[in-house]
Amino acid sequence: MKVRRSERLIDMTQHLLAHPRTLISLSFFANRYESAKSSISEDLMIIKKTFENRGIGTLETLPGAAGGVRYLSKMSRENADAFVGELCTRIADKERLLPGGYLFLSDILGEPETLHTIGKIFASKFVNTKIDIIMTVATKGIPIAQAVASELNVPFVIVRRDNKVTEGSTVSINYVSGSSSRIEKMALSKRSLPVGSNVLVVDDFMKAGGTVNGMKSLLEEFDAKLAGIGVLVEDENVGEKLVDDYVSIVRVQNVDIRQQSIEVEKGNVFND
Amino acid sequence: MKVRRSERLIDMTQHLLAHPRTLISLSFFANRYESAKSSISEDLMIIKKTFENRGIGTLETLPGAAGGVRYLSKMSRENADAFVGELCTRIADKERLLPGGYLFLSDILGEPETLHTIGKIFASKFVNTKIDIIMTVATKGIPIAQAVASELNVPFVIVRRDNKVTEGSTVSINYVSGSSSRIEKMALSKRSLPVGSNVLVVDDFMKAGGTVNGMKSLLEEFDAKLAGIGVLVEDENVGEKLVDDYVSIVRVQNVDIRQQSIEVEKGNVFND
Repeated sequence: MKVRRSERLIDMTQHLLAHPRTLISLSFFANRYESAKSSISEDLMIIKKTFENRGIGTLETLPGAAGGVRYLSKMSRENADAFVGELCTRIADKERLLPGGYLFLSDILGEPETLHTIGKIFASKFVNTKIDIIMTVATKGIPIAQAVASELNVPFVIVRRDNKVTEGSTVSINYVSGSSSRIEKMALSKRSLPVGSNVLVVDDFMKAGGTVNGMKSLLEEFDAKLAGIGVLVEDENVGEKLVDDYVSIVRVQNVDIRQQSIEVEKGNVFND
Repeated sequence: MKVRRSERLIDMTQHLLAHPRTLISLSFFANRYESAKSSISEDLMIIKKTFENRGIGTLETLPGAAGGVRYLSKMSRENADAFVGELCTRIADKERLLPGGYLFLSDILGEPETLHTIGKIFASKFVNTKIDIIMTVATKGIPIAQAVASELNVPFVIVRRDNKVTEGSTVSINYVSGSSSRIEKMALSKRSLPVGSNVLVVDDFMKAGGTVNGMKSLLEEFDAKLAGIGVLVEDENVGEKLVDDYVSIVRVQNVDIRQQSIEVEKGNVFND
């Protein structure tokens, strides 16, 4: 039965949103709704315009027999800016201060809507980068990795500091924790990263960058390529960073445990 | 500027999908599109019908001044059944067999679309249950927790077996691991669970249920209430389970490491 435009628009919107970066042929939609391709094309024009007007993302159309349409999650600068501003205020709360200059972030890392927005900001930043897989380290990097993976519609893999039977055989490396200069170990399941993968490394918090550096070394072991680095919070209190060319959403500086104060500003994701 | 119906339908669809279980007033939409509430009501009827026809979910309308509309994520039985059937086939792959009768599941737990569907199945099952928060244990329970939390639009908290500075002060308990009868420890950040919360406990894999049982004990320490238990895979190879009244999506039995064979069937989520 032929489907009306209103129903098509609703179902196409949900289908596109559920499959970011996936190329969907016009025939797929034409069959799904028993509608002419010309009607589907018109629908897509309306959806594209609305997504762009509302700061949701955009649609990219590829012509030809192998062509189709794909949804790219892209947050408007304005929406991203407002969100990060609020996030800075929340993170600057002195109640978050923990021994060693760490910050309590677990509440933020457990909020689905917040994570969704964080994922969208990273996805917007890396929209033109070839990324096959997201990598993070357990535990608190996981929510970030899952959020970004969801917006880019690629898998994510979890590097672990322990060695669990449930990972099967692993490749492990030793790395120097940047802030404490201790030797630590991290491991990744052997079957989790295909050779030649383009990998986006993400984490929740970066001090000197020792952990991120460890993940970079691990990539070499797998003959995988670093496609980018994204951290939710970077800490400016440490001296020199061990990595450069990372994207941060929030930057923390002048953490003063005695005075119980933190200064928080927007990260470098907005520098361009 | 007044917004046309086609644009309203697209934007309302994405807004509703992005905020499951959140009550949204008709005035919110009326203001957003500078449209009459009667038009918004008509839009919502069309969206509700489409969501139901397509097995996406439903809309619930609450009348009155404090009323509005909320989207409930609800997968059709048919779609869920097809998905779980495929998942069973994937999990029955003997390449997944690990020492001790464990199964390699990390690939599945890193696929955004798979996780999204798992989240939707649990959300459908617990659609009429009062749930304030999702709880899981690190590491591999996290993707499940985040997926379910996202569909129910509630926060999730992560119980840990180690004790990291970034959690602040914690409450910890000892529990008996059901399968190996060892005493283990788990801890949860003190500030993560408000008194009286209704908590849905989820995990990726359940053998005897010792870990889930540990989380139940932890709930008591926080004066929180168990609202339900959901596991992706339950293992039938163990003798008696330490917990009952759980929901499982997949059930594994007769794991035979020598013969390199596993039997996998649909879990109890479909018994009703």
